[in-house]
Amino acid sequence: MTPRNLIATDDWPDDEIRAVLARAAELKAGAAGASFAGKALIMVFFNPSLRTRTSFEVAMARHGGHAVVLEPGKGAWTIETRSGVVMDGEAVEHIVEAARVLGRYGEAVAVRAFPSADTWAEARRDEVVRAFADHAGVPTINMESARRHPCQGLADAQTLQENFGAQPRGRRFVLTWSWHPKPLPTAVPASAALAAARLGMEVVVARPPGYDLDPDDMATIKAVADRNGGTVEVTDNLDAAVTGADAVYAKSWGCLDDFGTPEAEAARRAPHRGWIVNEDRMSATRDGAGIFLHCLPVRRNVVVTDGVLDGPWSRVTDQAENRLHAQRAVLETMLSNRGEK
Amino acid sequence: MTPRNLIATDDWPDDEIRAVLARAAELKAGAAGASFAGKALIMVFFNPSLRTRTSFEVAMARHGGHAVVLEPGKGAWTIETRSGVVMDGEAVEHIVEAARVLGRYGEAVAVRAFPSADTWAEARRDEVVRAFADHAGVPTINMESARRHPCQGLADAQTLQENFGAQPRGRRFVLTWSWHPKPLPTAVPASAALAAARLGMEVVVARPPGYDLDPDDMATIKAVADRNGGTVEVTDNLDAAVTGADAVYAKSWGCLDDFGTPEAEAARRAPHRGWIVNEDRMSATRDGAGIFLHCLPVRRNVVVTDGVLDGPWSRVTDQAENRLHAQRAVLETMLSNRGEK
Amino acid sequence: MTPRNLIATDDWPDDEIRAVLARAAELKAGAAGASFAGKALIMVFFNPSLRTRTSFEVAMARHGGHAVVLEPGKGAWTIETRSGVVMDGEAVEHIVEAARVLGRYGEAVAVRAFPSADTWAEARRDEVVRAFADHAGVPTINMESARRHPCQGLADAQTLQENFGAQPRGRRFVLTWSWHPKPLPTAVPASAALAAARLGMEVVVARPPGYDLDPDDMATIKAVADRNGGTVEVTDNLDAAVTGADAVYAKSWGCLDDFGTPEAEAARRAPHRGWIVNEDRMSATRDGAGIFLHCLPVRRNVVVTDGVLDGPWSRVTDQAENRLHAQRAVLETMLSNRGEK
Repeated sequence: MTPRNLIATDDWPDDEIRAVLARAAELKAGAAGASFAGKALIMVFFNPSLRTRTSFEVAMARHGGHAVVLEPGKGAWTIETRSGVVMDGEAVEHIVEAARVLGRYGEAVAVRAFPSADTWAEARRDEVVRAFADHAGVPTINMESARRHPCQGLADAQTLQENFGAQPRGRRFVLTWSWHPKPLPTAVPASAALAAARLGMEVVVARPPGYDLDPDDMATIKAVADRNGGTVEVTDNLDAAVTGADAVYAKSWGCLDDFGTPEAEAARRAPHRGWIVNEDRMSATRDGAGIFLHCLPVRRNVVVTDGVLDGPWSRVTDQAENRLHAQRAVLETMLSNRGEK
Repeated sequence: MTPRNLIATDDWPDDEIRAVLARAAELKAGAAGASFAGKALIMVFFNPSLRTRTSFEVAMARHGGHAVVLEPGKGAWTIETRSGVVMDGEAVEHIVEAARVLGRYGEAVAVRAFPSADTWAEARRDEVVRAFADHAGVPTINMESARRHPCQGLADAQTLQENFGAQPRGRRFVLTWSWHPKPLPTAVPASAALAAARLGMEVVVARPPGYDLDPDDMATIKAVADRNGGTVEVTDNLDAAVTGADAVYAKSWGCLDDFGTPEAEAARRAPHRGWIVNEDRMSATRDGAGIFLHCLPVRRNVVVTDGVLDGPWSRVTDQAENRLHAQRAVLETMLSNRGEK
Repeated sequence: MTPRNLIATDDWPDDEIRAVLARAAELKAGAAGASFAGKALIMVFFNPSLRTRTSFEVAMARHGGHAVVLEPGKGAWTIETRSGVVMDGEAVEHIVEAARVLGRYGEAVAVRAFPSADTWAEARRDEVVRAFADHAGVPTINMESARRHPCQGLADAQTLQENFGAQPRGRRFVLTWSWHPKPLPTAVPASAALAAARLGMEVVVARPPGYDLDPDDMATIKAVADRNGGTVEVTDNLDAAVTGADAVYAKSWGCLDDFGTPEAEAARRAPHRGWIVNEDRMSATRDGAGIFLHCLPVRRNVVVTDGVLDGPWSRVTDQAENRLHAQRAVLETMLSNRGEK
């Protein structure tokens, strides 16, 4: 049997996603979890983490298992990710060996690898996490790559269900681009839009001209929405978008056309500092009571104001907590039926 | 119910401190501990640690629980600690979100944040650990701030009780300043003096002129001593202080008047290199058999000589071991009666 | 009772090594392991690690125990290793205190300390790991020092037994030096040769002139081979050595005569870039079916070609997996019969 990976939620059928979300809600409500005693999840972080690392460590511990945290280049060896190279430079370990070995030590492997390529054409292939999945021989979880952050998407969906019911069809979900001092990856916005589309919501992507998500990702979001009774729309009018909205999900991301040329990207971004979620915009949501979402970490008073984060609209702490329960549900599907190694 | 925090031992009533110390002694003697199975302590280190980190990790594991270790800026995101700022600089996460989220993942949170402000007036407010306590929603433990190191203080008290009995009234406890190449925080000396005062000992603080502890801390130490039958005295005569002493606790700290101006502090400190605990000074203690204490890490032959650390006087390893048992007792009060989240 | 350390496999008698290897094979085959519940292994890494750290963490977790990972200078205090010094420089903690304290927190201590001295005469004394063993008061495991990597040696022996049976006498084991951009330690080659010698194999060390292992280590390898029915030979003809070999173990190491003078070492090494294990050389082994071994991490196409690592000869992933099981067996001998602290 091929190990069951979670590289992107769009690789999983609708009914399995729904089952994971239902299980996540049960676990959050206190249902007894499966035992992971004697089992290990090996996490490899090429980039920093607070929520992802903590929520996975706690998820394993809550069920009696253990999570190992590795940071190549900091404590662990620097890892070469290209194929066929003569490794006479700085990297001392190849990703193929790292994946093969870690798959022998753990019952599952998880990888965080933000885009590091020079071009979007290359970065969008998500080669690091896919190499782990190809060589580990055990289920592999994407903890955020260039294209996807599936565990965040699951937590987003769980939070939407908590607020709008299991089938929030017809509710309006606004994903809004925000100004930010750096061009960030598109994994979170793509995964959040996918989450809302999967629930059949009316998805609106509000962004300035030039900040479209990857066309293949938009096509995937559209296809998922179509088959679940939802819609997808793109606009550059943030104020119109939030008016009457049920949920406002803020996230900054970089212009993909300027990927690899940060100066050009900064010039393009400069005029858009007004793209921030503030109290006025949240007051314009449905009955002034729309919910505010963000994956965290968030820059206060840059992406969203203090007044929104500390006000009645914010669900960002619930959303972060749901990472824990969504991941427990994912790990149950991966670890529970496997025998001792 | 407000979560029960441990920011400073002086926030806890005498009888609760006595109960924790009694329980720490029982646990050290082999009493069965409460189960922390499925529970997690989330530790956030803004500064390095060996004993604190290891003793908390082992404390949780000894009882079947798990401790997560986070180091903002190294593997975890850089954290903004000020209120109301526009976060367009380096920090990507605000302490408010970090605290709220970590309190959802763990049944308790623990924080180490040495003083980083420019002035003592600001540093002494211990804003980082207090922000965690305010926002985490679960019990918060201070793993050393500018003002207090309460777990060290509990281990100090436990070590004093091991050597002098549960109520060592009338025994002389000398806290001596030491020369050191850097100006260090006053959390440990304040906490150690509080520990001895709580046990009703005769506390003597020996330091060169200009090295007084914070006046509010001295007043607190005096008040704790008064109500427990002890005394507090300050002197600049180290040799007189150690003569006939029962316990000599060495620790260096920086001049608070020179806080934020290290060159002035270094000039003030320079003449005092003779403030070191050596075999002669330990031989002058009661019957030449006083005990030597230090929180560790300690600079050998700078703060104390090899001969003292490797001789019959030293209790520093016991003191470090007692961190483990004192913290187990603290965690039992915080975690044992809480239901599953 | 003196704690039972594992500084070098050659410190342990043949029958105990055989028993550990037999137990490692049982554990790998699924035998129920001893419980380490409530027990902790404290690991101190002065150098990076992936396999060692992960396999020890998983070994403890698999048996219900916990492993703590400390990295002095990164998160933990910088450690002074010399005796008698006045510690007024950078280091804030002495190895004696670190060892004494960690031995109070854990049921065993493990240390990785690559050579950092200026001369081989000094480095070869392995003072860091020996200081921990002297002062910790609990069993101490060498996770690779200048001289030995005993856990790797046990995994090597287990892998040889898996392929050639428990008593592979008469089988030819070729340890071959490889070109590499840096001069590496000799701990692994010495430990690998010891492993094969202990199994009574025909050990051949193939290396260019000037790259002999430490003479004392060679004498030890010879003595171990002699009493186990094996042989030891040294050659500078790699092609002849691999012809008809059963196992080829590649590993680079630096010239000990040039220890501390890296420029001289680089000049000596430069002509030997042809020392690489490729498909032609593996095809020359016995029936073209010899096995290839390496401790990992390995530089692809520098030490060994992609074709060998991805071909039928490679056992490097098995070898890495066996670290886990060999260490579980070692930990069982150290932890199983100890009472609660």
